[in-house]
Amino acid sequence: MKLPSSTEWVLHCATTLAQLEPGATASTAQLAEYFDLPAPYLAKQLKYLVRAGVLTATTGPRGGFRLARPAAEITLLQIVEAVDGASSPYECREIRQQGRGALPPEDCRNTCLLAARMNEAHEAWRGTLAAQTLAGVLADLPPSAPDHTRRVIAAITPARRG
Amino acid sequence: MKLPSSTEWVLHCATTLAQLEPGATASTAQLAEYFDLPAPYLAKQLKYLVRAGVLTATTGPRGGFRLARPAAEITLLQIVEAVDGASSPYECREIRQQGRGALPPEDCRNTCLLAARMNEAHEAWRGTLAAQTLAGVLADLPPSAPDHTRRVIAAITPARRG
Repeated sequence: MKLPSSTEWVLHCATTLAQLEPGATASTAQLAEYFDLPAPYLAKQLKYLVRAGVLTATTGPRGGFRLARPAAEITLLQIVEAVDGASSPYECREIRQQGRGALPPEDCRNTCLLAARMNEAHEAWRGTLAAQTLAGVLADLPPSAPDHTRRVIAAITPARRG
Repeated sequence: MKLPSSTEWVLHCATTLAQLEPGATASTAQLAEYFDLPAPYLAKQLKYLVRAGVLTATTGPRGGFRLARPAAEITLLQIVEAVDGASSPYECREIRQQGRGALPPEDCRNTCLLAARMNEAHEAWRGTLAAQTLAGVLADLPPSAPDHTRRVIAAITPARRG
């Protein structure tokens, strides 16, 4: 059970964008160079964040990405599920209904007891990440972090924006 | 982020073994036929449960598997982690230390703030499953379930035991 490396990318990119001046943007090229990530694949992930309403993409010569909402209103769960989906890692294939021990369909109208417990665990995972916002992450960064982040982003040519 | 189908297998097999008479066993062949699963691959998963101390394997003509401990002392977490491991699905590859925005090593002595939050979510997931025992699952089964389970297991030839 592994999340892809792009989960780390989007969490860090969103945290970086949350540190920019209000209204400022960063392009895919800037974020890719900031973290030394492959720009084409990162671009795809950032599009997922736009689709989920986490980021806004602006076009034009000064275009790029910025948070679509205040950092206090963006949860880590929204970021993670934008790229990884919301389904439970446990997939119930209803083996209770197959083989010699198969239960009759009328005994399987409710969710399998084991699947229900696995889903409950997934909801606990989701609940933890839903309770964490980008603003909370920023509050735990060193006070010097936003200045450093802004300076580094500004020093990177924003070529191939968007 | 997906768990393999074998996670469902081991949860159901452990639940089945928990319903047998005290001391009774079921073989790989019986459990495979009970759920219509591929016996060789199931055998491998059951070995992981033995290694983790969830099941005991007995040899000989009446050999097979039984719970290694009372059902009240076996958690769903122990079963799941026996086959899937205990590591967090989030893998921090320390991208905070790479690229133009790389933080100096002295700023990275502590776990990344984002990885810490992802690990916290994983601990919530683990905590939920650690609080669920096989005895708890059994308590939620229909009262007729153990009799049915025992009858079906007994009707399957225990060939290729172990």
